[in-house]
Amino acid sequence: MSPAAALNGATDDTQAWSVHKVLNPLPTPPNGPNTSPIAFLHVIERLKTNKREGWKRHGIGHGESIADHMYRMSVITMLCPDPEIKKDKCVKMAIVHDMAESLVGDITPLDGIPKPEKHRRELETMEYLTGTLLTPISESIAGEFMDLWLEYEAGQTPEAIFVKDVDRYELILQTIEYEKTHKIDLKEFLHVAEGVKTPFMKEWVAEAMANRDKAISIAIGAAN
Amino acid sequence: MSPAAALNGATDDTQAWSVHKVLNPLPTPPNGPNTSPIAFLHVIERLKTNKREGWKRHGIGHGESIADHMYRMSVITMLCPDPEIKKDKCVKMAIVHDMAESLVGDITPLDGIPKPEKHRRELETMEYLTGTLLTPISESIAGEFMDLWLEYEAGQTPEAIFVKDVDRYELILQTIEYEKTHKIDLKEFLHVAEGVKTPFMKEWVAEAMANRDKAISIAIGAAN
Repeated sequence: MSPAAALNGATDDTQAWSVHKVLNPLPTPPNGPNTSPIAFLHVIERLKTNKREGWKRHGIGHGESIADHMYRMSVITMLCPDPEIKKDKCVKMAIVHDMAESLVGDITPLDGIPKPEKHRRELETMEYLTGTLLTPISESIAGEFMDLWLEYEAGQTPEAIFVKDVDRYELILQTIEYEKTHKIDLKEFLHVAEGVKTPFMKEWVAEAMANRDKAISIAIGAAN
Repeated sequence: MSPAAALNGATDDTQAWSVHKVLNPLPTPPNGPNTSPIAFLHVIERLKTNKREGWKRHGIGHGESIADHMYRMSVITMLCPDPEIKKDKCVKMAIVHDMAESLVGDITPLDGIPKPEKHRRELETMEYLTGTLLTPISESIAGEFMDLWLEYEAGQTPEAIFVKDVDRYELILQTIEYEKTHKIDLKEFLHVAEGVKTPFMKEWVAEAMANRDKAISIAIGAAN
């Protein structure tokens, strides 16, 4: 790559991120089409072993996994009080929405990767997971996973808007819990509260933030 | 408690396990009825921080959480190929089935706690979570959580039988993955394969076990 291209943030083909560059160094990369889900589920294991990135910068080394985060999100979707929102779909959307991080990793705003490039990597991963690994098992199941992911990413339906808010609310709860446990101020994560759109979620978030305001000065004060 | 009672495995009231004995020492025990789910969701955080117990004895200190396990189970339920099994219910059942471990902990067969006592503790926890914490939010949602848990525990419906098999299959996959990563023999966990009942799950399990047979001698041989 030329220095000029590097300055412009361009990458040539040999440097571009791809699913296969992630898979090749794995001890047992998937063997290709198979009518059992084992290759897919071994990739899913990475959501259990990969940690959410944001906490590491604050010394929380053994913090939650990506799967931990999606797990509590799925519980939160089950609490949806609005009958107009299709709850069963939201439970599954919560489970699928960060699945691409199994291969892409948890890219945070501090990583310097532009949003379109993050989306491209995640789309390539979802196409691989559903097209290569799940389609031989069932086209309709593969389609369901991809449709849930695309609907979440587009963020237009009531379900996608709600699940995105659940993503923010779960992060807020975990922030407040880590603040209490580790006696540190993690308010840099709490700006996500401003993005919450669903009316009842705004109330839940406001209550969590009010609880934090009461507790934070005591907790952090005690540590200093 | 008298020595005779102790010999009989009896416990008096002051020694018996109860939800409130677990909650009281917590830094911020739930305050009682609340129309927001925050107290419930702080209890659910414990499924993210509590690790599955079996692996610790084998030196896997930072193994999967209880939430990690339920997360991949929920993904596996989404792969159910049998249209007679109500998949959306199974996804939620996978998410709820070990929820009582948030307060009870992950009791293993080596802990010496009889199955009826394990069930009693888990039932008391589910009654607390749904009756005390969720009912003020929504009686129907509280009822859904309790019904899913009771149906799973009873193990009679096609959904409960399938999700129990998913529980075993997820454990088998994780066993094989830890064997590869840590280069140790964990076959003591693999007896659960014998309990699998659902026909297509038997095939999935058989394939996983056959893959293990091929890989295990190489992996463990290389470490010795």
